[in-house]
Parts: sequence; structure tokens; C-alpha cells
Amino acid sequence: MKRVESMDYQKIREIFDQANFVKDLGIQIHEIRPEECETHLDITSRHLQQTGVVHAGVIATLADHTAGGAAGTVLKENEFILTVEFKINLLRPADARKLKCISKIIKSGRTLIFAESEVFAYKNQKETLVSKAMVTLAVLKKT
Amino acid sequence: MKRVESMDYQKIREIFDQANFVKDLGIQIHEIRPEECETHLDITSRHLQQTGVVHAGVIATLADHTAGGAAGTVLKENEFILTVEFKINLLRPADARKLKCISKIIKSGRTLIFAESEVFAYKNQKETLVSKAMVTLAVLKKT
Amino acid sequence: MKRVESMDYQKIREIFDQANFVKDLGIQIHEIRPEECETHLDITSRHLQQTGVVHAGVIATLADHTAGGAAGTVLKENEFILTVEFKINLLRPADARKLKCISKIIKSGRTLIFAESEVFAYKNQKETLVSKAMVTLAVLKKT
Amino acid sequence: MKRVESMDYQKIREIFDQANFVKDLGIQIHEIRPEECETHLDITSRHLQQTGVVHAGVIATLADHTAGGAAGTVLKENEFILTVEFKINLLRPADARKLKCISKIIKSGRTLIFAESEVFAYKNQKETLVSKAMVTLAVLKKT
Repeated sequence: MKRVESMDYQKIREIFDQANFVKDLGIQIHEIRPEECETHLDITSRHLQQTGVVHAGVIATLADHTAGGAAGTVLKENEFILTVEFKINLLRPADARKLKCISKIIKSGRTLIFAESEVFAYKNQKETLVSKAMVTLAVLKKT
Repeated sequence: MKRVESMDYQKIREIFDQANFVKDLGIQIHEIRPEECETHLDITSRHLQQTGVVHAGVIATLADHTAGGAAGTVLKENEFILTVEFKINLLRPADARKLKCISKIIKSGRTLIFAESEVFAYKNQKETLVSKAMVTLAVLKKT
Repeated sequence: MKRVESMDYQKIREIFDQANFVKDLGIQIHEIRPEECETHLDITSRHLQQTGVVHAGVIATLADHTAGGAAGTVLKENEFILTVEFKINLLRPADARKLKCISKIIKSGRTLIFAESEVFAYKNQKETLVSKAMVTLAVLKKT
Repeated sequence: MKRVESMDYQKIREIFDQANFVKDLGIQIHEIRPEECETHLDITSRHLQQTGVVHAGVIATLADHTAGGAAGTVLKENEFILTVEFKINLLRPADARKLKCISKIIKSGRTLIFAESEVFAYKNQKETLVSKAMVTLAVLKKT
């Protein structure tokens, strides 16, 4: 059951709906709050790496894009964002049926937004923090 | 025309062939040299993000996995690698038909390998450096 | 008034007392808790950079070393730590009379410890988060 | 023997001369080239950490500030820079009499400059790469 607000956050839905790669992977917005975004991803065999756990690239995509979702909550009408850089720690192997990512803005400036993303793995009713990322996004004006 | 050595580097081919996500994206080994790996990826619409350029997650996957390829060239028979962390700079939007990634080991230790990855975009016969990453990998023993 | 435990955490006191650069800067342990360390630094003019705020290098030293302090709380008798890498975000200019750093372990493994450090600036009774870092430390055996 | 140009690069000399912490540590500009800066630091006992090698904070300060020096070569008259974030890998223990840092710009944008810094240790006529950093700097206008 998704709790995405129906009227607000049009910008964030655009960030997800118009991002082919994110749709292709199956990443879903679960909830949007001011300066915060939560996404879910059901894991299938295509998301795995050679050791049978979720590939770091899937986790990085989730962490990066969800940070973009959080940043989207503070954008003005004519603004958009691009990731400048991110750093991701892969704390534990993501042996998971499902991943959850929660991203929060930690500093929102005029030209740069800093966010943090935490990625959790779910398997057998157990939640494990598998990854943490710091994401820097540039705020750009639509021309 | 790929120049992957036929006899050596079995370990690197495993790292690519058995990684579902990497095969699913279409990432190909182009060449392997000691402490170095080069991969290519033909870009299709599924790799794009909302602004029409290649998604940061695609670039990050390429940078991370190619670093794993470079690290694979120095592993012993009973060893395998896992990414511990990486940091990626997205220097320019990747408006590209094709991406190339070159990863090189900068320090190879007993338990940790440090590699750097450079990602180049190709379009209209022009090559552009679009991203640079530092990747730390842990060397683990197969049990 | 320091609250460093008198009997425990000998290892952390060593990490601070025997680190010339940390003593030279004036960094003080304020409190040690399991998997956590808090340090303070009174700012003088020598800590500043050309724009009059605290130099990023001072903040990085504080973030790195306090992470080492947190890591020290989980070390065994014959172990010591070395920083493998860190990533630091300088969120706001540190216009401060005093800095406080709180570091917490987010994953403690057999060979690697991951910690986060938050650095706060104090001026005119106001506390501001000025920096956040992710620090990876290697656990080594004394020989 | 320093090779700093006498007429140009006034901005870079300001970045070093007015930075108390950098002067306090003893960091010296050795050479400035377009988009590039080289600094040296003679190591004394105050720069060391508990294991007898140079403290990561010293290396980080050198890597960060030299990146600022490289960035300074492309600034316009009314601009200045602030470090936004950096990521540093400590590849080998810095057992050194002297450190050398070479920083190069890898992307120079209107509002952001990306640089890389390599830190080398010198001892017994031997040069060793001990650290590598990626530094992101914001370009700001003087008001």
C-alpha cells in the first residue's frame, strides 16, 4: 500500500516516472515526507551479482535516486537536480527479497543539496542495514 | 572485437558472466591487462534518467564492476572480492551512445584492493570523461 | 568537566595521548561510550583558514580521530586501527569558538570498522552541524 | 628552491599565506602550473600519530589545501573557493621525512571545481604514493 500524496510532490513523481532506468529496475516510491523519501524494490534474480547477493550497482542506484527524491521535496517550480557525487558504504552483503531505502536531506542550500540514504534488506521478516550513502546534488534552473 | 585473453583471467570472466545485473545491463569486457580492466556498454533508452542522459546508477555500476574486474587480475585461486565502498564523481552529464570504463588498481594489499575507474561517453566520434570513481574492495577467501 | 571513565577505555586514551598531532591541535576526549566517542576542540586563530572560519583540515582531523576513538571501544587487547579512507562533507562554514565531534560505529567487523562522525560548531550559545564524515578503519594485530 | 611564479597566481599565494592552519603546519607552495599545484611539507614529530607515521589529518589537510591551490589557478578576480567535500584513501602508512602533494583539476565548472590530489612520502631517497584524494570545491563570488 503506497502512501504517496496525491496532490503534492508532482516533482518527485516526475523524477521517478521519467527515469527509465529506475522504472526498469522496479524501484517504487513508498512515501514522501518533507525533506525525506522512502523507496522499495522487490529483488529478482536479475538484480544479483556473482556471489548471489544484490549487486552494489542496484544498491547504489536506489541510494542515489531516493536521495534525488528527498531533494525533490524542496525544489522550486523551475528547478531540477543532478547528482554531483556520492559515496556509498556496502556494510553487509544484501541477501534480500526486498530492499528499502530511506533518504533524508541533511543540508539544503541554494545550489547544493546534501542527502543521506540508508538501504535495508528484508528476508525472513528480518531487517538489516546493508548500505549507507552520502549524496551531493546540484540544484539547476530549467531554461 | 574483444581482446579478452582466452586462457588467463578465468576469474574475471566469472566475475562478469556470473553477475546477473551486469549481464542484464549489457556491460561487456573489452580488454584485461595486469591490474587493469576495460569494459564497454552500448546505451539504450532503458539506461537513461529523467533528463535524457545516462542514469548515475548505470555509471556507478560500470565503475564498480570494472574495478572488480581489475582487482580480479591479482586474486589468488581461492580468493574472491566484495566492494567495501566507493565514491563517484559525476563530472559531466553522460549524453552518450556508448560508455567505456577503464579501471586500474592503485594499491593491492593482502586484504584490501584500491582501484580507480574512469568512465568515458561516446557520441558523434567524440570522447568525454564523464565520471571518475575510487573503489575499495575486500579480498576474501572461499571456504 | 570530562567524563572519561577512569578504568576502561585505556586503548582510546592511548589513541589520543600518543597521537602528537591530535595533542598539538588541542583535541580533547570528552566522553567515551560503547561504540561511541565525543571530543571537543577550543578554536584559536591557528586553526583558521584564509576566510576566517575553521580550516577543513582541522575538521577532518577531528572527524577522523574521533572515529578512531569510537573504533577503539571495540578493539581486543592485541589489536590497533588505521584509517583506510574517509569522506567528509563540509556542510556549512565553521565559524566557531569551539567544535564538538560525536563519532559512532555503524558496522564493526573482524577486519574493518565503519564509523560516522558529526562535527558541531559552537558560537554565541548556538550549536550548528558543520560537517559529517564516513570513516573506514582497518583492524590490525600488534606483532 | 621554490619555483612559484612571481607575478601570477597572486590568488593562490593568498590562499596559502592567509590560511593560518596551513602556515602553522608548515605547508609550502613548491610550484604552480595552470590547473595544477604542488606543495611540500617537512615532517616533524608534531605531525605524527600514535603509530609513529604521519597523522591522516595532516595528509588530508595537505590534499585539501593543495586542491584549493590548483583551483585557485582558474578563479576570476572576484571569486573564491570553499571545499564542499572530499574523499581520501590512505593507501600506505606515511613513514616520511617529507610529504609532497600534487593536485590537478579534473573538471572546472562555473560553480564547482573537481580536483585530485596525490600525496607522496619521502624517506631514504625513496618516493612512495601514500594517499589519493578527490576534492570538490564550490566557486563563490566575493561580495
